[in-house]
Order: sequence, then structure tokens, then C-alpha cells
Amino acid sequence: MTSLKTKKFDLNTERDFALINSQTLSNLKMKHSSYIKVKSDSAEIMCEIIATENLIEPELIGLKESSIKLLNIKKDQKVSVYARRKPASLEHVKNKRIGSVWKENQIRSIVNDICSGQYTDLEISMFTLAQFYKGLNMDEIQFLTSSMSEYGTTIDFDEPVYDKHSIGGIPGNKVSLIIVPTVAAAGLLIPKTSSRAITSPSGTADTMEVLCDVNFSADEILEIAPKTRGMLVWGGTLDLSPLDEIVIHRVEQPLGIDPHSQMLASIFSKKVSTGVDYLVLDIPTGEGTKMPTKEDAINYAHEATELGRRLGIQIEGALSYGEQPLGKAIGPALEAREALNVIMGKGPTSVFEKSAELAGILFEMAGLAQPGQGASLASDYIEKGKTKEKMEEIIGVQGGNSTVTPDDILVGEYTATVTAPKDGYIVKLSNSTIKKIAFAAGAPKHKVSGVYLHKKLGDYCAKDDELMTIYSNSEGRLTEALNLSMNLSPYILEGMIIKRISSGPKV
Amino acid sequence: MTSLKTKKFDLNTERDFALINSQTLSNLKMKHSSYIKVKSDSAEIMCEIIATENLIEPELIGLKESSIKLLNIKKDQKVSVYARRKPASLEHVKNKRIGSVWKENQIRSIVNDICSGQYTDLEISMFTLAQFYKGLNMDEIQFLTSSMSEYGTTIDFDEPVYDKHSIGGIPGNKVSLIIVPTVAAAGLLIPKTSSRAITSPSGTADTMEVLCDVNFSADEILEIAPKTRGMLVWGGTLDLSPLDEIVIHRVEQPLGIDPHSQMLASIFSKKVSTGVDYLVLDIPTGEGTKMPTKEDAINYAHEATELGRRLGIQIEGALSYGEQPLGKAIGPALEAREALNVIMGKGPTSVFEKSAELAGILFEMAGLAQPGQGASLASDYIEKGKTKEKMEEIIGVQGGNSTVTPDDILVGEYTATVTAPKDGYIVKLSNSTIKKIAFAAGAPKHKVSGVYLHKKLGDYCAKDDELMTIYSNSEGRLTEALNLSMNLSPYILEGMIIKRISSGPKV
Repeated sequence: MTSLKTKKFDLNTERDFALINSQTLSNLKMKHSSYIKVKSDSAEIMCEIIATENLIEPELIGLKESSIKLLNIKKDQKVSVYARRKPASLEHVKNKRIGSVWKENQIRSIVNDICSGQYTDLEISMFTLAQFYKGLNMDEIQFLTSSMSEYGTTIDFDEPVYDKHSIGGIPGNKVSLIIVPTVAAAGLLIPKTSSRAITSPSGTADTMEVLCDVNFSADEILEIAPKTRGMLVWGGTLDLSPLDEIVIHRVEQPLGIDPHSQMLASIFSKKVSTGVDYLVLDIPTGEGTKMPTKEDAINYAHEATELGRRLGIQIEGALSYGEQPLGKAIGPALEAREALNVIMGKGPTSVFEKSAELAGILFEMAGLAQPGQGASLASDYIEKGKTKEKMEEIIGVQGGNSTVTPDDILVGEYTATVTAPKDGYIVKLSNSTIKKIAFAAGAPKHKVSGVYLHKKLGDYCAKDDELMTIYSNSEGRLTEALNLSMNLSPYILEGMIIKRISSGPKV
Repeated sequence: MTSLKTKKFDLNTERDFALINSQTLSNLKMKHSSYIKVKSDSAEIMCEIIATENLIEPELIGLKESSIKLLNIKKDQKVSVYARRKPASLEHVKNKRIGSVWKENQIRSIVNDICSGQYTDLEISMFTLAQFYKGLNMDEIQFLTSSMSEYGTTIDFDEPVYDKHSIGGIPGNKVSLIIVPTVAAAGLLIPKTSSRAITSPSGTADTMEVLCDVNFSADEILEIAPKTRGMLVWGGTLDLSPLDEIVIHRVEQPLGIDPHSQMLASIFSKKVSTGVDYLVLDIPTGEGTKMPTKEDAINYAHEATELGRRLGIQIEGALSYGEQPLGKAIGPALEAREALNVIMGKGPTSVFEKSAELAGILFEMAGLAQPGQGASLASDYIEKGKTKEKMEEIIGVQGGNSTVTPDDILVGEYTATVTAPKDGYIVKLSNSTIKKIAFAAGAPKHKVSGVYLHKKLGDYCAKDDELMTIYSNSEGRLTEALNLSMNLSPYILEGMIIKRISSGPKV
């Protein structure tokens, strides 16, 4: 152990670093790019060492502002510096190689060590890739889920909690904005926490934020939700599952992987943390989704329901059609507008129907409708304006304008419309390409950006009919998005041959 | 793409970094901690972005000295900065999850992409952990080996090349210093490249370096070796297997793993690169080695010989006793001294015998001795002074003092001797603890540091008999090493009870 005086350094990196003079490092027998523990009276962080000859004086330690904040120290205050020891739980991780099944206490120690900052990024990848390459059995997934939720914030209501969750994978899936007010209108408690976009042009939280605030503390949710019966908030501020944030940020996104077991544990740890009792699970299925085949989706649904059973959550999985975007609008503002339209009886049938089906399943679980009758009851709520009334109430308590209309919602001022190059039926409308175009236009960061689809799968187009309109907040982004749509052609029209290449006449 | 003016920055990290002003980053739509490509006229590197508000001006890029050297640019010269694209070969890596068998061209593209700096550390870990968790089949190991050697330097002799390799795992294994001159004395060509210590207190290159230079270029080896018939050089300068260096440094050492397939490919890629035709493979076996059981070692030997067959290398694997350090000396100078003693007929029998056995196997492979007679021929070479004469020649051409004697070799001036706490037979002498003590004393960095074992397994000790002497270059390190030996007790004497703890009399 040694004591070094802190100096704030104007460098920014994802991880914590410690800038130390090479002479001091040599005295401490430490090397750059290795890890140390830095400890104050109230906290401890792990830092990667950056060495310098002259940028910092000997006996000082340079830290970035956020590290100083974490350590809760004042200017010039001394911190203790230790060599870092590898966490013992790493041995359990390694044992996956020989097929070991992780025990409950082993999983808990891994989760605790990762959440308390004991693992390097490489070690977190070793844990995540153990799941990716070897998989976990149902016991392990259950223990991982419980450990993850134990480490996070818990929100306890003293009555049954209902919830809807989608595993994601298709753009335009704004149904939560219709399901939550419908279910709440029937008096069921549905305090839905949702994510911002990770790989989609708009997460439910991004879409709802167009209409009102989505940042609420656990205490605020506990106070408001029992009265309104429903809320739509961002889960990110609540720290429901710290491991999830770490693993997603540091390994899954950089490597572009989403191990099955981690995906299940991620979803269900948050459900456990928020005290969910009844859950309808939307599983979009089909090419271009997370579940390319029906078998994948059915297996997943079986696992999810089994995991729910073990955790005391009653679950119904619903395989939904996922071969094209849902509805016509993609991007936060466009989706919020479409959701309001549906609530007012003016939106696309597909969004209306999917919302009513999923809400109806919760009605059946709650005993408010006979099996098979839930969707019709939910449709009633929407058609008779009860959903609209409840949505206005929720928007109001979440600090938005409760009398907002679809036309009030601003969308991107720069627009371009893509038309059909020839006559034909639309035989393909690619989820992934539509996402890319929406990203290029600026979604989800720029809420007014997105894509509006005039035509969907199976529709007939005459040459020059409008296929889609791109909305953007900037002319440059609009051009980028338009170029992308020209190159990638999200729509495929039957019989459309783009180019014929001939070998020339036979000699 | 954008152009930024280079500025040298006094920061040191393992990886290349790019220090960029936050304003510039925002203009470029880039984020700190993401990766960019930096390109000069002659080279291209991948850098992790560090952001700063004030430490660097807008439109500049801060690089460390070694990055500037790699890019071969002058002061203030401009470089091109690109967003980094993920290498396509990553998809092959990922497919290991579903049990894909890597094809030859897939492995080649992975190896090329890693060696040319296209992979981040996390991505290299994904490749290494695919091997760790899933394993490779023999075809894949063969392709990996070939691809690794293709990427490195090749040394081609126009006559058969002999070699000895140890997979390592026990301290004190200085037999190469006896085998090489013995085999060369018989006229066989044995231009041995070896490593420095990775996890041991002295690698063969470290030990040889006590006697002479070990840094030679491929051209120098091609010129010298055919004349002397033998050399003992460090392989590190030769760049025989660039992938190996990258994987060991960036993933295997930090995570403390050594996947089986990677270990085989690592060894054999260098053998292919140096044109080895006949190889004797020393496989130390027993508790505390890399091959804890005889079955492990036999399986390994079968795999190695099969891999050799496919690569055109004739191999004989030799399981050797590895439950305690080999000989009495551990640490570069002490080991060099012991090797010279053995060559002069004064060293420990175990080192003499193991050296003669392994050299003898090469004699049999070369047809110089009948099966089973090689060891006795090798013993003759040592006993009749031919090994000594050849070693003096090799030391001479490698720039050392060819008339060096064991007593000329300096060892640590700070010494401490550990004695037996009571009478008894030595029933255990721990490889790993002896290693730790030698490390604490300063080996392999400080060549004079190490441990000398007065007693070995099975020896009888009277109380206060000398067990071992620790040598160090510094008083502080000596104390550390001595404390460690007190705490960890490398020797266990039969019947020795250190302490009795009683619950007290029954009430």
C-alpha cells in the first residue's frame, strides 16, 4: 500500500484510469496498463495505470473527474493505492471450461465481484463468453437471475403487479404505450419500466419521453403508480440490475453478442426487482428478429415460463409476427404519434390488434375475461376511449401535456419520400435495413427522426407510388439515410429485376 | 476520413491510443473509448480514443512515441483518421458458439486480422476463449499452426534440423544447455530458439544469456548454425509467430489461461517456421506441472505426434518426472552454473540423466544409435568432454567467454539459508512455492537471484540441516523471499506437525 495525493486530470475514458509518474511506478514495482485499487475513506475503485514521464509529478495520482466523484474526495486529498488481486470467483468462471455447473453461491460471488468493480473488462468477457460458448442450465439461469436482482434496487408493492415485456428485435413496436393505459384502465397495477433503444431506433422509454418525463425514482413510482394504476418509466435510472448494465456496455455491445442465458437473466432479474407477479411476454418471431424460426421462439417461451415458475412469476409467452416492422412509424416521435392515433381509433390495424391481444392476455390472467375473451375486452377499452382517458392521466402525472394530440407531436422538418421503381407486390420489407435508415436519419438520439412506411408486406404498388418517407432533424442526415435506402433497398417488389448481366453473344 | 496533425504525447499504455480534443471528436461523431484507424503513408494502426477538453488542441491527434515510430511519421505530419470497421473474420469466431468447425481459410483470415492489428483485446479474447471453452479438433489445430507460422519469419536450412522442446511447468529445467552441445557435437544441426521465462524463474534464453549473447537475426543464425551445428538463441527477436506474442500478452497472461489447442499451435508454428524435421518433446508430468496426471501427458503426446505427422515433423514425446524442480539450481545464473557443472561431470545426476536421455532420443531418430542405445551414446559425449568442447565453441561464437568456468559465474551477494525445523524425510518439494520464492528473490529479471536446493524429495534431514539457500541481488528482495519461504514452506518433512490446536479440556 502507498499513499498518493490526488490531482484531477482532463482525460476521458470509459474505465477509471490512474495517471502515475514512471518514477513512482518503478518505486512501487508497478507497470502501466496493469490494474490497481484506489481507496478513499468512503469508496474504492479499480483503475488501469497510464504512465507518464512529465505530465504528472512523482507522488501524485491523476484521476478523471468522475473517478474523484466516485471516491468522494476533495482537492489534493490523499488516496491509498494497492496492487490489485484477482477475485477468487474467477476460478468458478474458468471451471466452465471443463463443464462445471455453477452453484448458487458461486454465481452470487461472481455477480457481487463484477458489480463491485473487481473484474477487468477481459474478465467480464470471460464470464459472458462462458455463457455464450457453453450455455447455462435452468438452475444456473435461475441463480444468476436472483443474484442479479439481489444486487439491484428493489421496488415492492403490496398488491399484484402486472407487466408486459417484449424481447425486441423488430422496429416500430410501440404497443406498450397502448397496453399500459388499457390494463391500468381496468384497475390492474402495471408500473412498467422499460429500456431506451439498445439496437432499435426507439425504445419504449424513448418513445414515451416524447410525451412526458420518464425519469422517476423508486419512491416516486411507489407513490404514483398505485393511484394511476399505470406508469411508463425508464428503468435505467433505477439501477434494477447493475450487472446487466455492466455486461451489456462492456462486453455484449462491443462484441455484438447476446448470450441466451444472460438475456433471460437480464429480463427476469428486473421483473423480480420490480415485484412482477403476472407477465405477458411478446416474442417477435421470423427472419431478421432475435427468433428466426418458430422452434427458436417456442423453446424460448418454454424456458421463460419455466424460469418464471421458479421465480414465482406467472408468465404467458406470445409469439408475434415479426417479419416486418410493426405498424407504419419508426422513431420516437413518429411512434408516439402512431400510438396516440391507435388510442384514438385512427392507427394501423396491426398495432391495434397486437396491443389488444397482449393486453387481453393480462386480462385473462387477472380473471377479468374468460380464456379467449381478453382481446375483445381490451379492444372495448380502446374503442370506448377508456385507454385514451387513462393515457392522458398517465401523461399528466408524468409531467407531460395530458391533452396532447397526434398533430401536436413534432417530427423532423427535413423529409424525403422514396417511391416504387416499378409496379409489383411487396414481398419483403427488411427490419434490419429499415433500422439502419432510421439510425442514419438520427433516431433514437434525435427524437424527431425516423421512417414512415406507406406500404407494408403484401401491398400492391404502382410505379412511383410512395413507399416510405424519411424524417430527419438535419439535411445531412437525411441525405445519408436516403443514400442508404438507395443502396440497401429495404423493399423488394415481386418480379423486380434490377439489372441483367449478359456474357455477350455466343461466339 | 479526416486529417489530423500529429503531436507526441507523454503517456504510456500497452495499446496504442489517440488523444483527441472533445470538440474534434464531437465533430467527427466519435466517442472516447471507441477505436479508430490511424493511417500514415507507410503504415496503419488501431487506437483507442482518449478524450480531453484542454490537454490537446482541436484538429490535433496525440500519439505516444512508439505509435509515431510505427507510423513512421515526422513531427507535425498529418495522419488520416478513419472509423474502425469490425473485421469480417469475427463472424467465424462467433460461429464457434454453435459448434462450427473452422475451415482453413477462415482460420487464416482470423490469424491475419489479429496479426495486422484489426482485433481489439476483447475480440482477441473472444477468439482465445472460443478455444478455451470449445476446443479445436486436429484439423483446426493444424490449420491454426500453419497460419501462425505463415505470418511469421521463416528460417530455412538445406539440411535436416533437430530440436528439443519442453512444454515447461517445472523450475530448474536447464537441460537444453547440455542437450544442444551434445547433439551438435555429434554433427547434427540443432539451432535451438527458446523463450525467456513466462511463468518460470528462468527460461532457457535467460539462462544462456548469463554465458553469452542470445539475440541473433535469422540471417545470423543461417550463417552461424551450419558451422557450429548448434546455437541457443532467444526466439523473441525473430518474430516467428506474431499471433502467439499477441495472444499470450493480451489475453492468456491477463486471464491466466493456456488453451490446449493454442499451446500446441504456439509450439509447432515456431517449429515449422524454423524448419524443424526431428523433435524430442519433453513433457514434465506430475502434481504442480502442466500435466498433473500421466493420462493428460499421454493424451498430449499423442496429439503432438499426430500434429507433427501432419506437419512433416518426426516427433518423439518423452514424459519426464516433474513432481519437484529439476536439479538443485533455480534462477538464471545458478542454472547456468549447474549446467556447466553437469557438462564438466560435476552436476546433479538427475540433470545429467535427463539431458542424456533426451539427447539420446535425437541420436536414435538420426540413426546414430540403435533404439534404446541413444542415452548411453549421449552420456559418452558428455563424459568424454565432447559436449564441453562444443559448448565452449557455441559460447564463443555467440560472443561469450568460451573458457568460462562454473566459478566465474556471479550469483547474488545477499544470501540466506533455510534449515530443517526437525528430523525427517522430505515427502514434498513444491514446484510452485519454489518458483514464488525465486521470483521474490528477483529472478528472472535479476539474473544472479534464485534458489539452490540442498535437499530433494526422499532425502533425509536432521534438524538444522540446510534445506535451501536463497540468492538475491538486493537485501530487501532477500528478506521478502525468506519471509515467503517461512510462510509457504516449500519442503514438507514426514511427521512434521507444525502446530496443535486444542479445544481445551472437556467441561
